[in-house]
Amino acid sequence: MTPASQLLTEQVRFIDGVADKLHEFLSHQQHVMAGISPDVDPLITSISNLVTGGKRLRALMCYWGWRGAGGSASDAEIVTAGCALELFQAAALIHDDIIDRSDTRRGGPSVHRRFSQLHQLNGWALDDERFGHAAAILTGDLCLSFSEESFTQIGSRAGSGTAARHIFNLMRAEVMAGQYLDILEEVAGPVRDAAGSVERAKSIIRYKSAKYSTEHPLALGGALAGAPDHLLQGYSAFSLPLGEAFQLRDDVLGVFGDPGTTGKPAGDDLREGKRTVLVGFAINQAPAADAAYLHAMLGRQDLGEDEVAEIRRIIVDCGALEATESLIAELSDKAFAALERLPLADLPLTALRQLAEAAVSRAA
Amino acid sequence: MTPASQLLTEQVRFIDGVADKLHEFLSHQQHVMAGISPDVDPLITSISNLVTGGKRLRALMCYWGWRGAGGSASDAEIVTAGCALELFQAAALIHDDIIDRSDTRRGGPSVHRRFSQLHQLNGWALDDERFGHAAAILTGDLCLSFSEESFTQIGSRAGSGTAARHIFNLMRAEVMAGQYLDILEEVAGPVRDAAGSVERAKSIIRYKSAKYSTEHPLALGGALAGAPDHLLQGYSAFSLPLGEAFQLRDDVLGVFGDPGTTGKPAGDDLREGKRTVLVGFAINQAPAADAAYLHAMLGRQDLGEDEVAEIRRIIVDCGALEATESLIAELSDKAFAALERLPLADLPLTALRQLAEAAVSRAA
Repeated sequence: MTPASQLLTEQVRFIDGVADKLHEFLSHQQHVMAGISPDVDPLITSISNLVTGGKRLRALMCYWGWRGAGGSASDAEIVTAGCALELFQAAALIHDDIIDRSDTRRGGPSVHRRFSQLHQLNGWALDDERFGHAAAILTGDLCLSFSEESFTQIGSRAGSGTAARHIFNLMRAEVMAGQYLDILEEVAGPVRDAAGSVERAKSIIRYKSAKYSTEHPLALGGALAGAPDHLLQGYSAFSLPLGEAFQLRDDVLGVFGDPGTTGKPAGDDLREGKRTVLVGFAINQAPAADAAYLHAMLGRQDLGEDEVAEIRRIIVDCGALEATESLIAELSDKAFAALERLPLADLPLTALRQLAEAAVSRAA
Repeated sequence: MTPASQLLTEQVRFIDGVADKLHEFLSHQQHVMAGISPDVDPLITSISNLVTGGKRLRALMCYWGWRGAGGSASDAEIVTAGCALELFQAAALIHDDIIDRSDTRRGGPSVHRRFSQLHQLNGWALDDERFGHAAAILTGDLCLSFSEESFTQIGSRAGSGTAARHIFNLMRAEVMAGQYLDILEEVAGPVRDAAGSVERAKSIIRYKSAKYSTEHPLALGGALAGAPDHLLQGYSAFSLPLGEAFQLRDDVLGVFGDPGTTGKPAGDDLREGKRTVLVGFAINQAPAADAAYLHAMLGRQDLGEDEVAEIRRIIVDCGALEATESLIAELSDKAFAALERLPLADLPLTALRQLAEAAVSRAA
């Protein structure tokens, strides 16, 4: 087997293992729920739909963090850790879509929309939108509990007082804090000093995304395999700037991406009033009239194609897109340089390099 | 010391221990959050406010379940378990208040209202209500994670594969399923068969309340102390009907209670369209015109004092209140009979009897 095919084979085996384990876990939960009432089934199927597919970025970071620290390729514990991360991601997406009023997720309806549709389809009483939101809050809570149940199933290496448990706890707290800072900046950003907007946006992506999408999953895998501190520090030097670049790319795609590829309507981030680094640069660099237009349009639910196009023009003309692309390049360089310094065997090193390349150059 | 004062002393020591431990836990989390941004502090203070006060019913059930099974009076593990239950309850309340549009909690503003007020106070942009909801979703998620973090701190007795962990997992899944059935019945009840409404309402209170408020906490304490199966079965025979009676009392208070005592506006359950056992009896027993009036009014946000009074009259006149009170009495009798059959020492037996009496005869 060539190194490339060995990597692919191993990675596919892990991903399949995670998918099988998720299926097994959710089938068991479906059985428990069926004992309560057949009416509860849509909660489980909503979760199942969400954990089928996706990039599995977090699970893969965890896996290669584990392998890089000497974890064995065929170990049930790391598969269980991958499940826990995927379930946590699903829980975060369910609540995130309520918060951001996103009606679509991966090209299909988001969970709260699914429940609103169930309401309409059955001709139920009262308000379908409120029912959708309430049901999705509960589904996200259930999924968050499942994530933790799955994480505990790892056993003693993830037990009380372990490094892995500490990382898992910190990951959850930081991503929720980061998401709060994100919605806070939407409402407080307009009345806070514009000069600080880029720095605030950078802090937001660090907590809501970079630590959660790359740094913590990689460290978690490493910790489960017993990685020494210096290796975990090396992991962090690579994965934190990588995660920041990943989120900056996401922000650019949120404004300039092709809806057919991203699965999300173009301009939704603008309608939501997201004050990203990209927007922060624009606010500080655009001519006064353009900056005022941007301020007035951000967070307007009724933004049409023309307004979105005008905002794109402003972002491009003032150099904000270029500044963001430069920052992505700078962070990527930092990440790749740190990667090459990691004391890893060829296989995990190559795998992490591939993951990193996909993360910063993606189109969706 | 008399037995009565021994009981009181011990119970106060436990409650104080839980309060101290919660304070210590949340102070630590506040410190972690401060490292991210001072802006995140309101999430922690919201949680702190909620876990200060309250009846501590679940923590106390857990404690006496532990003591009844031979657990020692001065053990840090049971205090930690009490904290985990209180944090879980706080998380459930935060999301519940969003779902039920409850603007008050224990006489003060609910968490989503607090965040809306913070928005108004600071003159932030966009919609204060949406910000409140989003921030409260995230605060509830954070609190749910804290609950689990705290539970894991119990250590090996609550580790992977233990009876205690199984109960904790089941408790979370069942309460979320029960809450979903509750909101489902609000919208689906009007178009489902009226004859089944009492049975459906009974199933809802079993999962959303009885198992979660009394059965699981008592079993959890027992399991942590290594209770044999027959004791756990005896606990269940006592605590499940007790929890059902407790929730039925809550439903009666929701319609007939004194707002000054309950801390909740009278009639809120009716405005929310809650299809309780009390309402189920009324729908089936009231004359056609009254039942039609009830159907038309349930779930109307604009219900005034007069309409609430008329609904009260209907519930009383058709015998629905009496039927519910009979059911409360029947379930209480069942619970107290099962209690007397428990093979417990005098102290835990007396404590559980007092808790049970307070639960079914309360006014708030």
